[in-house]
Amino acid sequence: MAKVAVLGFGTVGTGVADVLSMNKKQISGKANQEVELKYILDTREFPESCYNHLVIHDFALIENDAQVSVVVECIGGCGVALEFVRRCLKAGKHVVTSNKALVATHGLELMDLAKTHNVNFLFEASVGGGIPVLRPLMFCLAGNEIEEICGILNGTTNYILTKMSQENLAFADVLKDAQDKGYAEADPTADVEGIDACRKIIILAALAFGKLVSADLVYTCGITGITDGDMAFAKKSNMEIKLFGRCYVCEDGKLAIFVSPHFVAKSMQLAGVNDVFNAITIRGNAVGECMFYGPGAGKLPTASAVVGDVVDCVLHSDNRRDIVWTACGENAVADFQSIPQVWFVR
Amino acid sequence: MAKVAVLGFGTVGTGVADVLSMNKKQISGKANQEVELKYILDTREFPESCYNHLVIHDFALIENDAQVSVVVECIGGCGVALEFVRRCLKAGKHVVTSNKALVATHGLELMDLAKTHNVNFLFEASVGGGIPVLRPLMFCLAGNEIEEICGILNGTTNYILTKMSQENLAFADVLKDAQDKGYAEADPTADVEGIDACRKIIILAALAFGKLVSADLVYTCGITGITDGDMAFAKKSNMEIKLFGRCYVCEDGKLAIFVSPHFVAKSMQLAGVNDVFNAITIRGNAVGECMFYGPGAGKLPTASAVVGDVVDCVLHSDNRRDIVWTACGENAVADFQSIPQVWFVR
Repeated sequence: MAKVAVLGFGTVGTGVADVLSMNKKQISGKANQEVELKYILDTREFPESCYNHLVIHDFALIENDAQVSVVVECIGGCGVALEFVRRCLKAGKHVVTSNKALVATHGLELMDLAKTHNVNFLFEASVGGGIPVLRPLMFCLAGNEIEEICGILNGTTNYILTKMSQENLAFADVLKDAQDKGYAEADPTADVEGIDACRKIIILAALAFGKLVSADLVYTCGITGITDGDMAFAKKSNMEIKLFGRCYVCEDGKLAIFVSPHFVAKSMQLAGVNDVFNAITIRGNAVGECMFYGPGAGKLPTASAVVGDVVDCVLHSDNRRDIVWTACGENAVADFQSIPQVWFVR
Repeated sequence: MAKVAVLGFGTVGTGVADVLSMNKKQISGKANQEVELKYILDTREFPESCYNHLVIHDFALIENDAQVSVVVECIGGCGVALEFVRRCLKAGKHVVTSNKALVATHGLELMDLAKTHNVNFLFEASVGGGIPVLRPLMFCLAGNEIEEICGILNGTTNYILTKMSQENLAFADVLKDAQDKGYAEADPTADVEGIDACRKIIILAALAFGKLVSADLVYTCGITGITDGDMAFAKKSNMEIKLFGRCYVCEDGKLAIFVSPHFVAKSMQLAGVNDVFNAITIRGNAVGECMFYGPGAGKLPTASAVVGDVVDCVLHSDNRRDIVWTACGENAVADFQSIPQVWFVR
């Protein structure tokens, strides 16, 4: 039997507990053994929750419990989450996370730690929520030289752009509607300024090209500047406006990596990706182009990806997934202004 | 170093040799060791080919060469391909195939043989060509109870339906055009009657539900009966006609599995899948719905999927991928006429 601990009992943490419970039989079958949730770490109590008997407040209990082989980090951010992940890896526990900031910022260190301690560090849920995309990129497409990745990586901004396009509304009005519906946070900066998408394209680029790029080298432009006039131009030209995270290798061997709104011809698959859905296209020199589409966020979809990683950790507990990343120097990234593109100037 | 043999030097076999050669460095990195093509088995000679020095005519050479750890079957059909695959598995070699007829018809026996001899039997390329879909279904979505799979699984029929819809042409005229362009075979029966799609939905259903259904229990209707009138009705109703392979569990626990043309609302993702492209949607009780889109056939895309499997075999040569299927009795499959559906009657 494999015992699992969840750190942080917010939306994703609750989803993980729910999925482990409701699909217990299915998961045990796939993992070739029972997978049981033993602890939930949180500072709060949850007297209404059916999982309250699992809630603990002392991380050291998990760290020192040799029975716990897989730890799921759902705290978020790079503060205490980073400290706990480090300590879990050092304690020889596999770690699964949905925390894109953690992976994009501290991926090199954590990957090294995982290697040193012969455990897995997996993060399928950090990009595309429930959409299976990192594992297919790493394994199914292992026979390809990856040429380009382009994705709609943030559900909040895609919801706003869809409403602006379909209902002729202004950015500020749709943002307020999205906040009322819970699709956008009270402080929407990380979403609307492209910061969230930036972290995700950094992770995709690292898996495709083996180099982890620092966020300050990624040109990042969000959707706050998009006007009614831009939308009208798109419509007139039979296009949609979508926020893309993109990365590809330029002719000089440098990596182009950026987040920016794009005009997209309606005939392109990505143009038809609406509302809070995400989609990622991957172009490889053998496969050509394929696309992965689905729910980019949400409690159960994100938990689906996390639990897939948990099963992988259990199946590969002796034979770890070896992911090799190196740091990416400033000179290896192309200057955004110098990348040949068709520009829209107003 | 891992040594590979390819059986059959047709389109897929040539593609596999090309991908192993052109992406050698990439593949070795992913497999943690060099992967080298040692033999190509075919009855013919290929004096013009740069691989002619690898061509042999005696299968026993491969069977008895302990250096060869992975065999790629690209012969097709269930004749000599079945015999060679059996013998490879018995000789302790991992087998990778793109042969959907072989997997759909003899999957149970071959999976058992693989288990007995502690080797992998993988077939990502048998469904969706280059699209990563079987591995994501098995592993990334391992935390889900799968509720439904629905796919455009045959590129030839999707090309024909796209042309009929976009250019108002009759079935027979488009079929001839597709044959001229090499998208349809001289004898197009397996494609246009839905037989190819039937094999693929059988494989998807087996991976999702653990039961291999016999083809004679799958209601299979192709596209030869689709008229201009049907197309006109679809257009008037803002729909497209697509050939779907579908499977899901009915309320009484029986498996609904069938291949049939469907009217599809244009707002559905699958309605926008055109030409020779394939796409598969998978609905799970945690993830919701996700879709996998890409090239469903072709030399290099199919080879991409095959080589991904080869790398998996090399990485998991001691720790085999355990796929468990059982036979599906007649009583476990729902009668097609009894499945609640919206019918179009003319």
